[in-house]
Amino acid sequence: MEKIDIPRLKDIVGEDNLKSNPADLYVYGSDSSVHSAMPWVVVRPKDIEQVQQIMVYANQEKIPVITRGAGSGMCGQTVPINGGIILDMKRMNKILEINPSDVYCRVEPGVVDDDLNQALKPFGVFYPPTPASSRIATIGGEIGNNASGVRSVKYGATRNSVLGMKVVLPDGRLVTLGARTRVEATGYQIHKLIVGSEGTLGVVVEATLSFVPIPKFRCLGMANFDTLEDAGNAIAGIMGGGIAPSMLELVDNVAIKAVNKTMDLGLPDVEAMLLYEADGMVKEAVDYEIDAMKEVCRKNNGSGLVSSYNADERAKIFMGRKKLFPALSKFSDVLSSTALADDMAVPYSKMAETAKTIHQIAARNNIIMTAYGHCGSGCMHTKILMEPTHKDQWDSAKKAVAEIYEYVRSVHGTTSAEHGIGLSKAPAFKLEKADSLELMSSIKRAFDPNNILNPGKLMDAPENWVTATDLRYMVA
Amino acid sequence: MEKIDIPRLKDIVGEDNLKSNPADLYVYGSDSSVHSAMPWVVVRPKDIEQVQQIMVYANQEKIPVITRGAGSGMCGQTVPINGGIILDMKRMNKILEINPSDVYCRVEPGVVDDDLNQALKPFGVFYPPTPASSRIATIGGEIGNNASGVRSVKYGATRNSVLGMKVVLPDGRLVTLGARTRVEATGYQIHKLIVGSEGTLGVVVEATLSFVPIPKFRCLGMANFDTLEDAGNAIAGIMGGGIAPSMLELVDNVAIKAVNKTMDLGLPDVEAMLLYEADGMVKEAVDYEIDAMKEVCRKNNGSGLVSSYNADERAKIFMGRKKLFPALSKFSDVLSSTALADDMAVPYSKMAETAKTIHQIAARNNIIMTAYGHCGSGCMHTKILMEPTHKDQWDSAKKAVAEIYEYVRSVHGTTSAEHGIGLSKAPAFKLEKADSLELMSSIKRAFDPNNILNPGKLMDAPENWVTATDLRYMVA
Repeated sequence: MEKIDIPRLKDIVGEDNLKSNPADLYVYGSDSSVHSAMPWVVVRPKDIEQVQQIMVYANQEKIPVITRGAGSGMCGQTVPINGGIILDMKRMNKILEINPSDVYCRVEPGVVDDDLNQALKPFGVFYPPTPASSRIATIGGEIGNNASGVRSVKYGATRNSVLGMKVVLPDGRLVTLGARTRVEATGYQIHKLIVGSEGTLGVVVEATLSFVPIPKFRCLGMANFDTLEDAGNAIAGIMGGGIAPSMLELVDNVAIKAVNKTMDLGLPDVEAMLLYEADGMVKEAVDYEIDAMKEVCRKNNGSGLVSSYNADERAKIFMGRKKLFPALSKFSDVLSSTALADDMAVPYSKMAETAKTIHQIAARNNIIMTAYGHCGSGCMHTKILMEPTHKDQWDSAKKAVAEIYEYVRSVHGTTSAEHGIGLSKAPAFKLEKADSLELMSSIKRAFDPNNILNPGKLMDAPENWVTATDLRYMVA
Repeated sequence: MEKIDIPRLKDIVGEDNLKSNPADLYVYGSDSSVHSAMPWVVVRPKDIEQVQQIMVYANQEKIPVITRGAGSGMCGQTVPINGGIILDMKRMNKILEINPSDVYCRVEPGVVDDDLNQALKPFGVFYPPTPASSRIATIGGEIGNNASGVRSVKYGATRNSVLGMKVVLPDGRLVTLGARTRVEATGYQIHKLIVGSEGTLGVVVEATLSFVPIPKFRCLGMANFDTLEDAGNAIAGIMGGGIAPSMLELVDNVAIKAVNKTMDLGLPDVEAMLLYEADGMVKEAVDYEIDAMKEVCRKNNGSGLVSSYNADERAKIFMGRKKLFPALSKFSDVLSSTALADDMAVPYSKMAETAKTIHQIAARNNIIMTAYGHCGSGCMHTKILMEPTHKDQWDSAKKAVAEIYEYVRSVHGTTSAEHGIGLSKAPAFKLEKADSLELMSSIKRAFDPNNILNPGKLMDAPENWVTATDLRYMVA
């Protein structure tokens, strides 16, 4: 910490945009994960030049730099486990250009997802990756994690919408990557690698994004299933049946119970619920997809098949899913909802088996786990309900997590669907990608020979990441 | 050439799968570009192990290895300008798995695009990147170039459909990249960088691809325009108007004249023609898109607005576009159709200006150029009609090409939409990507420290690539 030349950094960003008091450092040392560590200083650059100057300094002194958006990452991506400078990008929040006829916009990385969509609305278009945290998540953070959300089944993840970007490399060089056109085949399309690299390769200082028309019609339906198998067969039947949902969500019984317990929604106490949506410009086409999905649900013993085009009714149908997250938090006075094995993707045909396996592994380890997610894109989320102040619960949880990811690998699934790796998922990630870790490290060195950008994450993350600091924080 | 240990290579691939006689080497030294150079030997591996053994040997001896599919590349990607081993992947042509419920297939790289689609058809799905050369192009070659085609406007380019792959690295290591799921955020998604890397980073030995349902309805329409401006405004109006074509093609007057001269189609002698298609599962939705496109065309003075769902009539409407390529070849006894500045992408609003600029630059340099392409994805193709045995025509053509790409850069376009860089487009590519060339070279070294994979391409391509060998070949 004594390494840091505070006056030099103040010269770059200005007095008001540097924070070094312990209270601020503490806040910036946490994100939405179970991890925490103190940075040495926080700087809030306002433009590309300031970012370049900070990187030149940090690279020269070999000081870690952790780029940070909203801090809504669930796996510790922005937690500075080796200390260093937090580069808070939220001041760089200008929408630089919206070009409706050329179908792209250019934004600074600190723009909040919902703000971008607000600005795009008058043009009749939207930016589709939108994770559940879109109210706070920044475009830069979403790029770092290749974020996606409920509509990725139709519109893809962040990478699909990123046409190009400007990136400051660790040595301060500014490079422009990609293009402003829908297709490009002009040499290495490096921006596609930067997406999902969790701030380890470069600092994204501008992004060129594509967008899509806002559909005139949206219809949302639900179906209840007595068994997870039936729900899983419905998922595989829909996705393998040439049907095109704009959303396909699974909610399990643990989540249903949590919602019913904490709010008065009266969801049926079934083993699984599916929410399915279709959207489009023509009602007949949306009807077609919805009818096809209902038919598949019916064939797989789905019941309570309601659906609606009406916005209020859709909100009502979706309420259970929307409130799942806070419901889990309020589920018990004793148990906390913890993001640990929070995210994975599996083939459609394994969705039900995955949910059941999660429940079994949880039970075997004396914890409670819920399984839900954007199953239309293969994404499964979980939360662990446990007492985080009890070391034995942590041990159980970590054992369960390892078992779950072992299962995920055995069915050709992958460790993260959309939340990224950070620290929490690094052990599973290293096992899954064992044969390409060395290549990833070579790539990392090509970008960042001094290893200053977000060091100690992904392939370099510690095996035993719940440090003493973490535990102190958690029992505080 | 004397470096090559022929017996060792024969031990690996077998006597019948090694070619070293001059006639074979000559054929394998050319692709669909203006370039040509003799390799030292051609080997045809049958499996991953053989590829690994070849790479171990080549890496040890620092011998260039050029991976080759059908040789349908237009820019010299597979021309061995530094000699070396041609790795002909066409024997590795097995479809390993088609998994309809999990919506992926796994294929070897030598599988021909049309053959894959033939195999997918019984499942009601198709693999959409399909370039014009799909009858011969291999999946491996399409991955190398991030290929796309007429339907990229709706379904994206190759990268969008590649979920994962197995790659043999230059030192013989086998790595598995990506996943089998629609979304993934598990560390560096290196396969997305391999797509479009033109065989310079690794040898793709297996690919996991997604596919999409075959639409029940397709409707193709056309419109004629007296001016390129009107056609260009229609393109920007459609793409910026929230309309979703599955195809949107521009054909200019040079191409129309060539088609009319060489076959009896009687196309109207207008300045520009647009072909527009929509597809979907519901006729009302296809009607909606087609009507919307016709309306935009009409507003921009488009005439002759015919459209049809009927397969025969669609083939008739598309005939002019389909026959464009052979028509240009047969346009004149003296002039040849040459792929030089054959491919670029520009923002929609610049499409007409780009076509006009191409014509003006051609005229100024005393050559004839046609402009056409998949303008729905920003892609513009050209062909140069010239006498390739005349050195002054080459000089003019190369001057024109440089001027065209200078213009493309000035309007924020990019050097290649879908044909890649290889040798022909390397000078323009280097100017466009000047600030990231060094980074690309760092990445190349991280994968291939001995520079054996397709050396002398992309950032390492020679500035003056029409060598004496090329010229001798062309005047032969």
